Amino acid sequence: MAKPLPVSPLARPLPDLATIAGVRLSAVAAGIRYQGRTDLMLAEFVPGTIAAGVYTKNACPGAPVLWCREALTTPYARALLVNAGNANVFTGRAGMQACEDCADATAQLLNCPSQDVFLASTGVIGEKLPQDRIIAALPAAKAGLSEDGWANAACAIMTTDTFPKAARRDVKIGGKPVRIQGIAKGSGMVAPDMATMLAYVATDAKLPQNVLQSLLTSGCTQSFNSITVDSDTSTSDMLMIFATGLADNPEIDDVNDPALAEFTLALNDLLLELALMVVRDGEGATKLVRIAVTGAESNFSAHRIALCIANSPLVKTAIAGEDANWGRVVMAVGKSGEPADRDRLSVAIGGTWIAKDGGVVENYDEAPVVAHMKGQEIEIAVDLGLGDGQARVWTCDLTHGYIDINGSYRS
Amino acid sequence: MAKPLPVSPLARPLPDLATIAGVRLSAVAAGIRYQGRTDLMLAEFVPGTIAAGVYTKNACPGAPVLWCREALTTPYARALLVNAGNANVFTGRAGMQACEDCADATAQLLNCPSQDVFLASTGVIGEKLPQDRIIAALPAAKAGLSEDGWANAACAIMTTDTFPKAARRDVKIGGKPVRIQGIAKGSGMVAPDMATMLAYVATDAKLPQNVLQSLLTSGCTQSFNSITVDSDTSTSDMLMIFATGLADNPEIDDVNDPALAEFTLALNDLLLELALMVVRDGEGATKLVRIAVTGAESNFSAHRIALCIANSPLVKTAIAGEDANWGRVVMAVGKSGEPADRDRLSVAIGGTWIAKDGGVVENYDEAPVVAHMKGQEIEIAVDLGLGDGQARVWTCDLTHGYIDINGSYRS
Repeated sequence: MAKPLPVSPLARPLPDLATIAGVRLSAVAAGIRYQGRTDLMLAEFVPGTIAAGVYTKNACPGAPVLWCREALTTPYARALLVNAGNANVFTGRAGMQACEDCADATAQLLNCPSQDVFLASTGVIGEKLPQDRIIAALPAAKAGLSEDGWANAACAIMTTDTFPKAARRDVKIGGKPVRIQGIAKGSGMVAPDMATMLAYVATDAKLPQNVLQSLLTSGCTQSFNSITVDSDTSTSDMLMIFATGLADNPEIDDVNDPALAEFTLALNDLLLELALMVVRDGEGATKLVRIAVTGAESNFSAHRIALCIANSPLVKTAIAGEDANWGRVVMAVGKSGEPADRDRLSVAIGGTWIAKDGGVVENYDEAPVVAHMKGQEIEIAVDLGLGDGQARVWTCDLTHGYIDINGSYRS
Repeated sequence: MAKPLPVSPLARPLPDLATIAGVRLSAVAAGIRYQGRTDLMLAEFVPGTIAAGVYTKNACPGAPVLWCREALTTPYARALLVNAGNANVFTGRAGMQACEDCADATAQLLNCPSQDVFLASTGVIGEKLPQDRIIAALPAAKAGLSEDGWANAACAIMTTDTFPKAARRDVKIGGKPVRIQGIAKGSGMVAPDMATMLAYVATDAKLPQNVLQSLLTSGCTQSFNSITVDSDTSTSDMLMIFATGLADNPEIDDVNDPALAEFTLALNDLLLELALMVVRDGEGATKLVRIAVTGAESNFSAHRIALCIANSPLVKTAIAGEDANWGRVVMAVGKSGEPADRDRLSVAIGGTWIAKDGGVVENYDEAPVVAHMKGQEIEIAVDLGLGDGQARVWTCDLTHGYIDINGSYRS
């Protein structure tokens, strides 16, 4: 990057972070691409830590994604190594070799099997990963491991992000306190499935892998798979959760166990908070946009319609221009290919129904709509009038900032 | 529009236009939305003229699209009335009434059935069409009808277009000269199917409707359905052809008749020329981009992959920044959902293969690639290495101009 990007106007401050028993993190400057900042994070997990993950569906995934999918065939995790600046994508056999080398070096240092080391890389596609620099930085990374390393880790994984992203929840399972804490990065090439995005959550809860995986998969649907910045799906996306099991909670083997309800809600909430931070840091974003679709033929159909609106450049540029151009919303519904009946369609902006049953609402009050469009959080509601299907997705506006950032990313 | 847009750097001059026997056109200022320019075109066709059409697949089409689909249940056309500035979309029952009123008034003036009058409207969605102004302008439009009215007609249908678009071909059917001439408009909300776009072609050839419709449908696939500016599908798109039958060509009832081969090629060529003019006038465009996909599992798959690349904001902004960011092309292939094998994928820019068989080409010559990216016409080739499927699509880059135009369209 030629110069640092201005911080997103939608940025959120880092929350009050705590520690997760059994997790230590560190961040170092390995000089992979960026100068004068950290670009490599290492997390160490206590033996017995269980992992679950959700990975990009892009058909050309990066080597680290392939590595992690393979590593997840056993439930255990002892380390997570993430670099920023180079995505290790489309790097052929050399890319897989780089993964093996990095995992082996980490495993040797932490005295664990290579398969218990999870890897991620984010940044430019198609350039060979300078694994020697990563491996050379590992001893310093190990020396810096600390239970308080969360904020530094959140900073080290940033690429075009303009603020570090983290969230925390304290809840109970069966009356026993457990904690969930996570970090994320992502700001461009963000679209389902999933956002261009790395997100790592840890908890001290004691949970078997099937429960953990099931919680993560379902939480991802309503969070990271319901956001889009630019409709582009990264080759490197991943969301992982690590459960150290050091809390005193009772054993749970069923994801639907009522004792897990509070934890599930808190995890979903934390995932959504992290996902919305990614949208808030959408490249060039000045407005966070929530699109709620109701009355569709199914939830699936509602989700597709909502994404079609959220990905429409014309809808997004209108929002950037603070123009309540509901006609473009109608266009986006129509182009989705999903069942829609023009004469039952209604559109609201900021809670004011502008169009109802196929026509503009005569003499609707424009003043609150105009005021709403000037705000930082925009709400668009669409009712199809066909059935009970509903969905919510989030996106941001499309501005000059997006063009600035992406027209010169590699220069 | 607050102020006129600068003419696209990719603009083409109007070609040397001729007349089509049996077609007279005029353009007038009806004051629908724009001031100080024409915004209504009328074309009159000689009795016996045959029409064929292709219309938007958007599920929320404008009232004029519904009108035309209905009018096309008989093959005859006597008039075409097109206004710019108001799309007459999402205007409920009033929108259909406006169509009926405009068609009736035109039919009365030209002494023909209302069903032989074709209508189109382009511009803002959701505002009531001021049909009284259109109807009031009809007598002047009739008075101005002229065989030489083509250029004026091309100007009258422009909205955010920055240059008028027309093309002409002179060919033979069975040794007898016939002519094809057409005009088009479109620059934003342009994506299959079809471009946000109006295109009208006339010919003096004598052809039955089934042949005409079949020629148009197939010509549209390789032209207007192979372009995209911003992935948004308009509610008003249409492509029509009118054949006056005043030429001396022999009768043809089979679209595959060898006597029609030259005409078919010329028509396809003219449709592609018009479609590329629409891309050349893509909102904010500074580069025309051709994406050629080969080696896909099928032509259909190749077409979807090509569109996925062409619609990727990250690919388009990279091109705007003259950055040969082939990694984003790989990402777009991967997100298409079509069969792709990372390790067989190759990418070329400007004829230089940068990536082959899943990895970057070691020491490829960057100089010609850098030079190519600075040009106005960019060529991206992707080979999947899987089968014989191929497709070509065209798009433009995504620049600050697009944001400028669409962030303030209604203001």
